[in-house]
Amino acid sequence: MLVMTLSEYSNDPSFDLVKTLKMVLIHDLVEIDAGDTFCYDDHDRSEKTERERIAAHRIFSILPSEQAHEFVNLWEEFEAMITPESQFAAAVDRLQPLLLNLYSEGYAWKKHGIKKSQVIERNHHIAAGSKTLWEFAQNLIDEAVRRGYLIDE
Amino acid sequence: MLVMTLSEYSNDPSFDLVKTLKMVLIHDLVEIDAGDTFCYDDHDRSEKTERERIAAHRIFSILPSEQAHEFVNLWEEFEAMITPESQFAAAVDRLQPLLLNLYSEGYAWKKHGIKKSQVIERNHHIAAGSKTLWEFAQNLIDEAVRRGYLIDE
Repeated sequence: MLVMTLSEYSNDPSFDLVKTLKMVLIHDLVEIDAGDTFCYDDHDRSEKTERERIAAHRIFSILPSEQAHEFVNLWEEFEAMITPESQFAAAVDRLQPLLLNLYSEGYAWKKHGIKKSQVIERNHHIAAGSKTLWEFAQNLIDEAVRRGYLIDE
Repeated sequence: MLVMTLSEYSNDPSFDLVKTLKMVLIHDLVEIDAGDTFCYDDHDRSEKTERERIAAHRIFSILPSEQAHEFVNLWEEFEAMITPESQFAAAVDRLQPLLLNLYSEGYAWKKHGIKKSQVIERNHHIAAGSKTLWEFAQNLIDEAVRRGYLIDE
């Protein structure tokens, strides 16, 4: 829903929306299967991609081979974050947890003692998909600091 | 996920997939808000469209007017089931509960004493979106009768 609602803010106005929608749906299905990881847990994150790759191949191999191939490729494209579609998909995928943290009074940030610098480090690639959304995200982060949801470091 | 996975079975091979994906996402959002209805409850169903229309207008009016207009129109298009996109969206929307009933050993059907004729009456419009999926659905329904999940009437 966020991808379709915010599509006009992609850096590349001619990006392929249907490919991006497929990509985010596929990406989340794999995360549901492989288990998502708290994005500031560096240890667990290093194994995340390999765990998800195994899941992606297992799940999509249920499909006819042509479709399995398409879906695995879309998953790999998302992970590589090189194309405009995957960069916009990744931007929206990062924006959503920022919004959830802001609307839950910084629940996950406060629980884990997260600092502003960590949030910037983990989310600055939003700019690769959408400069406008990264500007918006930076305002959210500053607002979160003002409200005491994030440590100002 | 079903729309993107089954898109090749649309009766109209040139249907607009991105429009259809938007339509099903919007449709489900409105159902979440307005409350879904058991599809064999005729009394409740008669009020369902009006309840959902009110919800659609309220939810989408949060958006900028151009986008609110687009989303309300997509919702109305889905409900009218005249275009290839809405007919395919509706086909997939009906196929999913059939699959859920089959894989849950007819849970909702048995609980409410549903008959085969009711399932055919409620689902035969799948054919308007996809003759192939309706053929597939009819096989599922016959299988459900054989397994005793549905009353053979």
